[in-house]
Amino acid sequence: MDATHSEVLQETPSVEIKSFFDSAPPLKDADEISRKLKEFVERNSSTPENGRVTRVVCVTSGGTTVPLEQRCVRYIDNFSSGHRGAASTEYFLKAGYSVIFLYRRGTCQPYCSSLPDDPLLECFDITDDSKIQVHPSHAEVVKRAISEHRARCQLNMQAVVGGNLLKLPFTTIFEYLQILQLIADSVSKLGRSAMFYFAAAVSDFYVPWELLTEHKLQSASGPLDIRLAQVPKMISVLRKAWAPMAFCISFKLETDSNILLAKAAMALKKNKVHMVVANELSTRKDEVIVVAKSGNIVVRRDKAQPGAEVESPLVELLVDRHSAYIKEAGV
Amino acid sequence: MDATHSEVLQETPSVEIKSFFDSAPPLKDADEISRKLKEFVERNSSTPENGRVTRVVCVTSGGTTVPLEQRCVRYIDNFSSGHRGAASTEYFLKAGYSVIFLYRRGTCQPYCSSLPDDPLLECFDITDDSKIQVHPSHAEVVKRAISEHRARCQLNMQAVVGGNLLKLPFTTIFEYLQILQLIADSVSKLGRSAMFYFAAAVSDFYVPWELLTEHKLQSASGPLDIRLAQVPKMISVLRKAWAPMAFCISFKLETDSNILLAKAAMALKKNKVHMVVANELSTRKDEVIVVAKSGNIVVRRDKAQPGAEVESPLVELLVDRHSAYIKEAGV
Repeated sequence: MDATHSEVLQETPSVEIKSFFDSAPPLKDADEISRKLKEFVERNSSTPENGRVTRVVCVTSGGTTVPLEQRCVRYIDNFSSGHRGAASTEYFLKAGYSVIFLYRRGTCQPYCSSLPDDPLLECFDITDDSKIQVHPSHAEVVKRAISEHRARCQLNMQAVVGGNLLKLPFTTIFEYLQILQLIADSVSKLGRSAMFYFAAAVSDFYVPWELLTEHKLQSASGPLDIRLAQVPKMISVLRKAWAPMAFCISFKLETDSNILLAKAAMALKKNKVHMVVANELSTRKDEVIVVAKSGNIVVRRDKAQPGAEVESPLVELLVDRHSAYIKEAGV
Repeated sequence: MDATHSEVLQETPSVEIKSFFDSAPPLKDADEISRKLKEFVERNSSTPENGRVTRVVCVTSGGTTVPLEQRCVRYIDNFSSGHRGAASTEYFLKAGYSVIFLYRRGTCQPYCSSLPDDPLLECFDITDDSKIQVHPSHAEVVKRAISEHRARCQLNMQAVVGGNLLKLPFTTIFEYLQILQLIADSVSKLGRSAMFYFAAAVSDFYVPWELLTEHKLQSASGPLDIRLAQVPKMISVLRKAWAPMAFCISFKLETDSNILLAKAAMALKKNKVHMVVANELSTRKDEVIVVAKSGNIVVRRDKAQPGAEVESPLVELLVDRHSAYIKEAGV
């Protein structure tokens, strides 16, 4: 571990990391989060009856914000609906994983993505004798919605109550990285059975908390110069020090397809993750390219099947590779 | 008008205004928006049978974004749920106004704020003979929700179909000010019968479009310096040149109560609006202070009445003052 630590020091100056965490406001509910994580990992590290060790994946989802004021009115945001993280969480649970879902408040949740957008209340009437009635024309739609909702709620309840799904929310880049460190500390004891799936859109730059004005920025005069510091590359720290045995998948989103694969390959090498999922903003729901040392794999959603999502074959591929990674150590 | 124009030139350099609009990407659907506005103003400028001229208020609502990239992944946002603008729109319609609702996509809408947060689907079952059934324990709640929803939908439909409510969405600061200019041009012909109610959280700073990188900012090395230009004070331009006869209410939100009233008084004087609604972030749902030349008026929600909103007495006060403003011209 000493060697690992000194490597970290070489590549990501510890002063940057220290200064990021020192500059962050204290994490609320840190004790409560640690307690939940401890329980979750304990429950999932006991070997179940079938003799197979439970695998745990931490799925990060949604964008982090960078506050520009301490009492936050203005902030820099990263666009992300959280759909990829929420959908992937469902596929991981289906594949038998337990999931720590680290998500941006207000973004997509697993088992909620198929809820109808239109208010369901539209479909109902109250009769003269004060009974609730469904418009006959809507009966089939409502029935399907109720059945699907029931089934999804049940899966969600099973996962949460059964201890296979732990949801932890964040808003700012500070909360995100503070909680991520707590998660990494907890799951590191699961060794190779743990996976990280970094689907969140994480800010690259931040304003150190102590440089933020307490109150709203005043716009009295002239242009405003903001100096944003780089957010330290925590994935590389996580790989080397926080949870070095965990299987790590990071994401690269670009709008320019010409530089996408080169950037993904660079991230693979620099952060020493196991795979990088490269996606372009405009086509990300249909296709991603998984970049690995062994070569690139194009993963596409099955367009012949209505409602098929690219996350389904993507998670399938990653679960396979994770299995191989676990076996490697066994021999 | 010449004098007015030269004053504008003195206080808000026209070069700043020109450079803002020149730097903005072209507004999509500009022709369609202009057509809708023209129709709306025509419909509302004919004297109805009761002889009273229809009053028109433009309510702005929600926060504007400042893109940091042309194909926008990262942006600066202003926190605002849009609740104040949506609720105020309902009270203005109730008071007989026609409303142009200029709102941030995805924020609160009039007549939608009371929809239940929990999925209504929870309340339903499908019986063995394939009928939809309400859980008996939920029947009253569901009935109330359906009745309220019906009543609100009807008000919404009446307002939209009846031509008293025109909704126009925005996302960026560019769209917001471009559409605002179109609105001001249209309603200026209504003279004193028009009102502007600036409840939106508008960015004070922006990055000129041509300085934005087309693609995602690259985070390769070192800190990032962003120079933000000041957004020209368009309210003062609107007051003096775009719609000089309209009754104008602006808002001042601060987190620091010590400077709030001084800032509001300064805005009143500088932008030459008729009233400024001063509100503090933490208490804004209970109390606002209306700052005017004639003195300050504290407006509070009626806490004795469940569900009472501060927007109700606020809009009542503004309608009174608007009436007085219209009468002033008549004598």
